[in-house]
Amino acid sequence: MSSAAPVSPAPLPETMTAILISAPGGPEVLVPGNRPVPAPAAGELLVKVEAAGINRPDVMQRKGLYPPPPGASDIPGLEIAGTVVALGEGASRFKLGDRVCALVTGGGYAQYCTTHEATALPIPEGLSAAEAAALPETAFTVWSNIFERGQLKAGETLLLHGGSSGIGTTAIQLAKAFGARVVVTAGSDEKCAACVALGADLAVNYRTQDFVAEVKSFTGGKGANVILDMIGGPYIQKNYEAAAQDGRIVQIAFQQGAKAEVDFMRLMLKRLTHTGSTLRSRPVAEKAALAAAIVEQVFPLIAAGKYRPVMDETFPLANAAAAHARMDASAHVGKIVLTVD
Amino acid sequence: MSSAAPVSPAPLPETMTAILISAPGGPEVLVPGNRPVPAPAAGELLVKVEAAGINRPDVMQRKGLYPPPPGASDIPGLEIAGTVVALGEGASRFKLGDRVCALVTGGGYAQYCTTHEATALPIPEGLSAAEAAALPETAFTVWSNIFERGQLKAGETLLLHGGSSGIGTTAIQLAKAFGARVVVTAGSDEKCAACVALGADLAVNYRTQDFVAEVKSFTGGKGANVILDMIGGPYIQKNYEAAAQDGRIVQIAFQQGAKAEVDFMRLMLKRLTHTGSTLRSRPVAEKAALAAAIVEQVFPLIAAGKYRPVMDETFPLANAAAAHARMDASAHVGKIVLTVD
Repeated sequence: MSSAAPVSPAPLPETMTAILISAPGGPEVLVPGNRPVPAPAAGELLVKVEAAGINRPDVMQRKGLYPPPPGASDIPGLEIAGTVVALGEGASRFKLGDRVCALVTGGGYAQYCTTHEATALPIPEGLSAAEAAALPETAFTVWSNIFERGQLKAGETLLLHGGSSGIGTTAIQLAKAFGARVVVTAGSDEKCAACVALGADLAVNYRTQDFVAEVKSFTGGKGANVILDMIGGPYIQKNYEAAAQDGRIVQIAFQQGAKAEVDFMRLMLKRLTHTGSTLRSRPVAEKAALAAAIVEQVFPLIAAGKYRPVMDETFPLANAAAAHARMDASAHVGKIVLTVD
Repeated sequence: MSSAAPVSPAPLPETMTAILISAPGGPEVLVPGNRPVPAPAAGELLVKVEAAGINRPDVMQRKGLYPPPPGASDIPGLEIAGTVVALGEGASRFKLGDRVCALVTGGGYAQYCTTHEATALPIPEGLSAAEAAALPETAFTVWSNIFERGQLKAGETLLLHGGSSGIGTTAIQLAKAFGARVVVTAGSDEKCAACVALGADLAVNYRTQDFVAEVKSFTGGKGANVILDMIGGPYIQKNYEAAAQDGRIVQIAFQQGAKAEVDFMRLMLKRLTHTGSTLRSRPVAEKAALAAAIVEQVFPLIAAGKYRPVMDETFPLANAAAAHARMDASAHVGKIVLTVD
C-alpha cells in the first residue's frame, strides 16, 4: 500500500499570486497578494491555472454579500482551466499533465487552484484555455436549470432573461441545438442583435419593450414553456404572466431583489412550477452527475460547431479589478475571463 | 350501424328538481327549482343521483366568484353517486343499472346529472351512496396534487393545511397508508384531535401554535418535504420557511387570498418547487388518467380498511342552503353531503 502523500511531478512553489478581497467594496478592493499554494485533499486535483472565468457571484462575494460556503477558499473564482500538477489521495480520473476545465467552490483567481476531480472536465478539442475557463459555470448552470430542472423539450419556447450574459449566450446555443425556440431579453439593441446572431428567435429590449406582450405575441398567446430568470423583483409576477400552461420558471439569482408582491392565482390556474437552484452549495455527487451529463450531452455540440463559449474580453490576473469593473458596467456580451501566466 | 340515440332503459322524466343559484350571495340564495333532465352527450353517462358532495368551489360559485367553465352546467355540484340510467353515444365503460360515483364539471345538486364515463368510478364495495359521493373530489385532488404533482414518497413528511377538511381527512389516510409522516394544521383542539385519531403524527392548532416552528421541531430542523396548501396569503412565506431542501409546495386554493409579499430567496436556496393546480378545468384525458390511478392505487386501500371518506353531516337536496351554512361556519370535520330521493 502506498502512502497517502499527493502525487506531484515536480517541486511546486510554496506560494502563489492570488487575487484577494482587501475589504468589501467596488472593483478596486480586488488586489493581488501572496498565498500558499493549496494542497489537493482526497479526491482533488491541483491545477496550474491558465485562465479563470468571472461570474456574478464573484461580484456579490466582493461586495461582502455572498460569503464562501464552509470549507471553500476565500479567494474568489468559481471556474478555471489549466493543467493538472498534483493529485490528491485516491484521485484517479485524470493524470498529471492533463488539461482540464473545472467548476470549483472558490479560489479560481490564482496561479494554482484545487478542484474535486468529479467537477473537472477535459478541455474540449479546439477550445483555448480562456474559452475553456468560460465554460464550466454556464454549462453547469444551463444544463442543471434549463434542461434538468426546467425540462425544456424540443419544440418548446424558452424565455431567457439576460440573453447576452455568459449564461444567456450559452443557453441560446444549447436550447437551439436541442430544438427549442428561444426568446431573450437584453438591455440594448446591440445586445439584442448579438443574441439574434447567436440564434435567438426573438430578442426583446426590456428598456423599450414589454417582454410579456412580446412573448405572448411570439407564441400565439400561449406563453413560454420554460423561463430562466436571474432578475427577480418585479420580473417574478411578469414571468407568471409570460408563462404557458404547465410552464416551468427557474430562478438562479435575484439581481433586482428576492422580495416581491405577487399574485399567485396564475401559478395555480396555469399549473406553473416555480423553482430555482444555486450551483455552489450543491453536494459533490450532484455536481459530478451534472459533469457527466455535460460531457455526454454538451461536448458533442462543441465538436459539431453548435456551441462555443462567447467571449467578451480577457484581462491578466493582476487586472481582476478592471475585469470586475467591466462586469459592473454591464456592457459586456458573453464571458469576461482572467488569464494567468 | 345503429343510430346515435342515447340508450335508456325506461322513460325518463322530462324535468327534475335541481338546486339553483338565484343570485350571488349567502347560503339562502340556493333554492330548489325545476330544470330539464340533461341528455348525455357522446361518451357521457346520465346518472340518477343518490348523493352529491359539497365542496369549497361550490361556495365560491354561489358567491359569484367562480363561474362554471365553458360547457359546464350552471347548477352547482362537482361530485355525485348514483345509478347509470342512460348512455351517451359510444359510452361503453359502464352499463345501465351500474352504480357509480363521479367527478363532474357541475350539475351535481340535482336528481339527474351527466358525467363523462372516463371520470366515473364504480362505487367501492361497502361504501354507502353518501360516502361514495364524498369520495371523487378529495380522492382526485389528493392523488393529483400530493402524489403526482407533489411526488410524496414513503418516509417523507407531508404538511397538510386544513387537516380536518374533506381533502385533509382523505390526505391523512392516504399519506399514512403510503408510509409518509403527516403533520396537519387545524383551527381547534377538537379538529386537531380528530386528525390525530385518523392517523396524523402531529396536529398543530394554528390559532395557538406556530406551524413553522412545530414542523421544524417535528422533523429535527429539516422541514416538510411536501406541503399541500389551500390557504395562501400569509401562509405562502411560512410554507417556504417550513419546507425542507428540495421541498414541493402544492397550491390548490387561496382561502386567505392569492396575493402576498414574499421573499423568494429560500425558494432558490432550498431548491423548492412551488406549483399548484385546479381540477375542474383539466381536460377529460387527464381526469381519466387520474381516475385509472385512483382505481389502481386508492381502491385497494378502501378494501383493506385503510381509507374511508370521513363524513360530517348529510342534508336532503332541498336543504342545500343549510348544508352550505354548515360549510361556511367551518365547524365541520370531513365531508358534507346532500342526499337525493
